[in-house]
Amino acid sequence: MAKSTQEKLVSYLKDTHALEQMSLQMTQAAAKATKDPQMHQLFQHHHEETKEHERLIRQRIEAHGEAVSKAKGVGGRVAALAKGAGAMVASDTPGRLARDGYVQEHTEIAAYELLCRVAEGAGDTETVAVGQQILENERQTAEKIADSWDHAVELSLGKTGVSA
Amino acid sequence: MAKSTQEKLVSYLKDTHALEQMSLQMTQAAAKATKDPQMHQLFQHHHEETKEHERLIRQRIEAHGEAVSKAKGVGGRVAALAKGAGAMVASDTPGRLARDGYVQEHTEIAAYELLCRVAEGAGDTETVAVGQQILENERQTAEKIADSWDHAVELSLGKTGVSA
Repeated sequence: MAKSTQEKLVSYLKDTHALEQMSLQMTQAAAKATKDPQMHQLFQHHHEETKEHERLIRQRIEAHGEAVSKAKGVGGRVAALAKGAGAMVASDTPGRLARDGYVQEHTEIAAYELLCRVAEGAGDTETVAVGQQILENERQTAEKIADSWDHAVELSLGKTGVSA
Repeated sequence: MAKSTQEKLVSYLKDTHALEQMSLQMTQAAAKATKDPQMHQLFQHHHEETKEHERLIRQRIEAHGEAVSKAKGVGGRVAALAKGAGAMVASDTPGRLARDGYVQEHTEIAAYELLCRVAEGAGDTETVAVGQQILENERQTAEKIADSWDHAVELSLGKTGVSA
């Protein structure tokens, strides 16, 4: 049982790391895809935060004697999301950029909710602490995106002077 | 401008309809994929609710003189999600089933947040009302899934008598 829980923890850590790698691509693509200063700042700021998340999770994987890999062996839905990351630049409206970002944040929130619990089951208090810290940041980012629905729709409908 | 907003409303309605079609597949697949009564009930119940959402959104599309189509022309991320729907049955743990469901709900929450605002911009009060009603249900479902993290991880770690 102990070994199985340990293996599951490493599996969840690797999934979470793959999500952070994806988030690095997405936040950068989203920041480039919008000319709106407010949305650019939102994605650019989270891109910087995501670099730190990737580093923290990589360290936890290494602490378990494993190495990080390129988004490999990730579950079906996450793999599909990863495939979508490249397509994100083509999102045609600020509304859709915001939606994609919101979905990405909640994918990560779910992953960290699970990771923290699996880490607790495995007695890895360090991963629990790191996971909770990142979870809090992902929640805040999701809230910032949710606060931007009005602005994103205004941009999408061409109600501001700034093009998307 | 009026025509452009109208066209955008129909585009958002069609995206939302594609998401509901995807949700119909996913909730059914998820309900079949778990032997746990609590998780089965959660997904089965939302599958029934989703049938009603699909019908309501289809009616709004038809009210604008358009017809629904199979998930066609949906934006990059949503198309990637749709491709992942089929893979969902292969999700290997209850934790991942819960995560996929949580992500699906937040994809819909984002879509309805945008739809309601675009509909408001287009003066379509009927779509605003329908959208807000469904949005409330998607939020409740997301909360139910979030309430099940502990249970899902217990199942994933084999801490209950029920296999996944």
